[in-house]
Amino acid sequence: MIIVMEPNSTLAEIKSICEKLAGMNFSCHVISGVNQSVIGVIGEITDELCEKAQLWPKVEKALRVGKPFKLVSRECQPKGSIVKVGKVNIGKDKVVIAGPCAVETEDQMLKTAAAVKKAGASMLRGGAFKPRTSPYAFQGLKRKGLELLYEAGNLYDLPVVTEVVDPRDVEIVAQYADMLQIGARNMQNFSLLQEVGQTSKPILLKRGLSSTVQEWLMAAEYIMAEGNSQVVLCERGIRTFEPWTRNTLDVSAIALAKEVSHLPVLADPSHASGKKSLVEPLAKAALAAGADGLIIEVHPNPDQALSDGPQSLDFNEFTSFMAALGGERK
Amino acid sequence: MIIVMEPNSTLAEIKSICEKLAGMNFSCHVISGVNQSVIGVIGEITDELCEKAQLWPKVEKALRVGKPFKLVSRECQPKGSIVKVGKVNIGKDKVVIAGPCAVETEDQMLKTAAAVKKAGASMLRGGAFKPRTSPYAFQGLKRKGLELLYEAGNLYDLPVVTEVVDPRDVEIVAQYADMLQIGARNMQNFSLLQEVGQTSKPILLKRGLSSTVQEWLMAAEYIMAEGNSQVVLCERGIRTFEPWTRNTLDVSAIALAKEVSHLPVLADPSHASGKKSLVEPLAKAALAAGADGLIIEVHPNPDQALSDGPQSLDFNEFTSFMAALGGERK
Amino acid sequence: MIIVMEPNSTLAEIKSICEKLAGMNFSCHVISGVNQSVIGVIGEITDELCEKAQLWPKVEKALRVGKPFKLVSRECQPKGSIVKVGKVNIGKDKVVIAGPCAVETEDQMLKTAAAVKKAGASMLRGGAFKPRTSPYAFQGLKRKGLELLYEAGNLYDLPVVTEVVDPRDVEIVAQYADMLQIGARNMQNFSLLQEVGQTSKPILLKRGLSSTVQEWLMAAEYIMAEGNSQVVLCERGIRTFEPWTRNTLDVSAIALAKEVSHLPVLADPSHASGKKSLVEPLAKAALAAGADGLIIEVHPNPDQALSDGPQSLDFNEFTSFMAALGGERK
Amino acid sequence: MIIVMEPNSTLAEIKSICEKLAGMNFSCHVISGVNQSVIGVIGEITDELCEKAQLWPKVEKALRVGKPFKLVSRECQPKGSIVKVGKVNIGKDKVVIAGPCAVETEDQMLKTAAAVKKAGASMLRGGAFKPRTSPYAFQGLKRKGLELLYEAGNLYDLPVVTEVVDPRDVEIVAQYADMLQIGARNMQNFSLLQEVGQTSKPILLKRGLSSTVQEWLMAAEYIMAEGNSQVVLCERGIRTFEPWTRNTLDVSAIALAKEVSHLPVLADPSHASGKKSLVEPLAKAALAAGADGLIIEVHPNPDQALSDGPQSLDFNEFTSFMAALGGERK
Repeated sequence: MIIVMEPNSTLAEIKSICEKLAGMNFSCHVISGVNQSVIGVIGEITDELCEKAQLWPKVEKALRVGKPFKLVSRECQPKGSIVKVGKVNIGKDKVVIAGPCAVETEDQMLKTAAAVKKAGASMLRGGAFKPRTSPYAFQGLKRKGLELLYEAGNLYDLPVVTEVVDPRDVEIVAQYADMLQIGARNMQNFSLLQEVGQTSKPILLKRGLSSTVQEWLMAAEYIMAEGNSQVVLCERGIRTFEPWTRNTLDVSAIALAKEVSHLPVLADPSHASGKKSLVEPLAKAALAAGADGLIIEVHPNPDQALSDGPQSLDFNEFTSFMAALGGERK
Repeated sequence: MIIVMEPNSTLAEIKSICEKLAGMNFSCHVISGVNQSVIGVIGEITDELCEKAQLWPKVEKALRVGKPFKLVSRECQPKGSIVKVGKVNIGKDKVVIAGPCAVETEDQMLKTAAAVKKAGASMLRGGAFKPRTSPYAFQGLKRKGLELLYEAGNLYDLPVVTEVVDPRDVEIVAQYADMLQIGARNMQNFSLLQEVGQTSKPILLKRGLSSTVQEWLMAAEYIMAEGNSQVVLCERGIRTFEPWTRNTLDVSAIALAKEVSHLPVLADPSHASGKKSLVEPLAKAALAAGADGLIIEVHPNPDQALSDGPQSLDFNEFTSFMAALGGERK
Repeated sequence: MIIVMEPNSTLAEIKSICEKLAGMNFSCHVISGVNQSVIGVIGEITDELCEKAQLWPKVEKALRVGKPFKLVSRECQPKGSIVKVGKVNIGKDKVVIAGPCAVETEDQMLKTAAAVKKAGASMLRGGAFKPRTSPYAFQGLKRKGLELLYEAGNLYDLPVVTEVVDPRDVEIVAQYADMLQIGARNMQNFSLLQEVGQTSKPILLKRGLSSTVQEWLMAAEYIMAEGNSQVVLCERGIRTFEPWTRNTLDVSAIALAKEVSHLPVLADPSHASGKKSLVEPLAKAALAAGADGLIIEVHPNPDQALSDGPQSLDFNEFTSFMAALGGERK
Repeated sequence: MIIVMEPNSTLAEIKSICEKLAGMNFSCHVISGVNQSVIGVIGEITDELCEKAQLWPKVEKALRVGKPFKLVSRECQPKGSIVKVGKVNIGKDKVVIAGPCAVETEDQMLKTAAAVKKAGASMLRGGAFKPRTSPYAFQGLKRKGLELLYEAGNLYDLPVVTEVVDPRDVEIVAQYADMLQIGARNMQNFSLLQEVGQTSKPILLKRGLSSTVQEWLMAAEYIMAEGNSQVVLCERGIRTFEPWTRNTLDVSAIALAKEVSHLPVLADPSHASGKKSLVEPLAKAALAAGADGLIIEVHPNPDQALSDGPQSLDFNEFTSFMAALGGERK
């Protein structure tokens, strides 16, 4: 920790801070600059200590040196992780997960599974528990949705991923799904993170729509700290001032997460843009920035979808999309 | 709903959209402008219909007329609501809720309760379940914390409010607390909103740090839709690009929420700024903008606090703060 | 400057950095922590040196200690500055500047000057050179506008302020105006800042709509570095994700600017909100946060205004507004 | 224009609005919905009219149908524009513009020109007039810088682009440069836009760091409205809450600008990230999203650069970068 003292601090004031820290078993080195002094503090520093030190007399600021995460860090594991979901190796092969925003009917799921399998997708997605901004909007088929998703995935040999929104549902969702998704709105629902951290299922952790990359990695750290190391990150766009897109896909975050962490990183261009015509360029951009794969919304009839129609591709569009991706997926 | 057609749409294309809507029992009125046509659609419009319509051929955009919330709306209840917590009437009297970020010890709570009562606070706060960015940070005393908070509030005749972060904890927290707080990170934890909506306790709903005012009101609508109408909103700062404050207190949101909704609105200048010297100016600004009260962090020794020290006032500072507020609280 | 070395740096690598700095006449102190080392660098540090040091081998980051501004700093002048504009003392009396967004006609200006004077305003505003997002929108009356503004101010004994947008116009604008305004979009138009810094007129410097407080103060430093110390800051709202207001009035920035700098600070609640009903609550909030005054849009017929109608008050509304402000202006 | 009336408007109030509009020669069509009425207004609508209408009694909001730009619009010119700078065809070939942030010495420019030419760059960049946040930072060599840039470009047959920051400098810069750059901070410096719009030089228009895509296109419209249609857009990152990158490269904006406008679009991954390790992934992402080329900072000794060192590539790094780009530039 570095403590920057205010320009007008006296030697006695600096000494008093050092004594306080010595009493807590830290060692201090004072550097007196032209206008200001700084104190280098050595020992096992916590965020709490750093916050407290801000308040001590004549302290201008206290800065922690080093990153607050450990298990997710590439320093801790230099080689990129591979997370296995059935036969799919996320982090090794470029994976495309496809399917509707919400599970609606058996027919919808079977047709979609067949179509995305044929077009080259390796996993199936579909929401059974839907977090919706309005209490009056369709909230998902819940258990029935899990059954339909499982059935479709099983029939077409596609591992399935679905969102869990309540710690009380983790057990039931884990019975049906091959991978559990934590949605953007729940990225800092720490009870839920701890609960999925206690399962043996791989976790797809979406970035919160106004979370920093560090907060996202700390959310992954929560899951890993419970013993589950099968975490896959997913960038899905951040909230900015731009009104022409629903969110702004942050490709720098993909590159940064790959640089700082060993975890695989996917991108969700469908949610990021909220606009069908942007799905392909954003998907290509995400892969070019280093993403390990994509999650794409596909629906038999997007204009009849019960949620998130505007960004869903129909089967023909998805087939063209996969063909267009061709080279980028190598 | 207003559907704006692309400039190059033909009459046949416009007619086809109208027929589709007629088949769904909506009536349509076409207005042909100089460059573009628009269709006015009459009937009970949902967000889902609006999203779907965006995808129909030659539709440039579909706009819903009117607000998506009902129960929280001032149109629905022109007179401002008063939410009673014990003898405190939020929405009538300007209320100050004070106490530490986290409950730590019995001594801390009793001293704080005595001090804030004496200085004029009307309610006591303190966190027993703490949502923390890092899994390695202090997470709160949990049940023991609830007991200490209850004891201190009871002894000094101060109703108590504390955060609940997990739907499974709502029952136990409701046994000890007079008011349940939904934190900023859980503002769109819909399972938790529904759970507290089923209790008979007043709810303090903090605004998510990147939530729009409309999303905040929709979160309140979730609680009210479950039957609990005792909701108090709390603005606590939004995430912006400014690095010198932790968050940016949005006083416009206070004025807007009061204008659009009948619910009382508090402000939390401590969390908004993360900086002790800003607590007083921001508190005054919030009251001047129309806030019904404040929630302020107070700790016997802020530089020893287990969380959020930098923004906490000590007892002397809180006493001066209350005195300085004087006129604004009328 | 503090240089944080990467965790895996060797002693030789640290030594090599210190030698490079010694060659530039800086002295270095190395502090070896548990995981990482830091180097404290003493001497006259510049931003450029700090940027370069980031690139040296094994450097994780280089942090400059201390603020980059001098003349605007409260450390440099502990007492708040008073900027005189005619008989008005900004920084001493709470000042209200009022008038239309754009100067349109003689009748409009004379009527407005009379009305705002009567209601208690101390200065008159009006735009002759209008920066407009669209090249097809009304761009102001230019020289004719300056004449009308001057005439109205002169007749009603109100000092006038108007915006200058081009360094070539500074001379002519300075002939007519008592105070020159730098608009939000030009806050980092450094040529313009330097040009107005060479006049003897007081300057009203609006904060850029996505400028940090530090960048705003640096823009003031540009003006002061040219020899003109009569700078008044003006907070006018920042760009955020919230769509219900045009911008978000940042009251923390007002309090921070007053804390860090000796310059007076005004607020512009009209532009910040873009909404008439918010002008009064935001004005009160700004004053409560410590603002030295306000700038308010007033127009004889807001619904006929050539620009920015939605946020302008008419004469009756402005009179009520001034009455409502009453207590806060003491 | 669509006028949405408040839910409680009477027929008389609606009629009164229609009469006002009829008096201005617009025709109106009223659509009475379940809760609210809307008025469709036909005629040549301006932004000003739309703003005024917001203020009329019982008007909830007034929405303009259609985009406010014309000349930059793809509707106006369905085929993508090609902007010629010497022998380089921007919009046809994928172009890479390379060079230092600031022109410093003859040796620096000649070496850089030779190196970037050899590595495959097609144009040379270098700043002679530097907009800097601090008045105390290096502001560029000005005229001397223009000469050195011209000489290096001429010798190595590379067209040159350089920034102009003051309308008074446009003439001199145009004498030396093949293309004029408008920097992000000056994107809404409308005097400067108009001045460069009157030259016959191609213009590189950077997006403001908090400008919407629409505002960016309107800035291009300013230039084109003066008669200069040779405009190239350049996305260089927007300001967000993320602290680990200097700005957030907005690849959606690249795809959107290409969709909505016929103008070529470049990307500047060096400024967007402020971090050398991100230049390559962001460059690839930008091209994958549809960018017509890149602008990359290259310096003989980045750790000695007078500005923007941290994001500059040295010659070896640039050569590897160009090789790595290989496939994406087809």
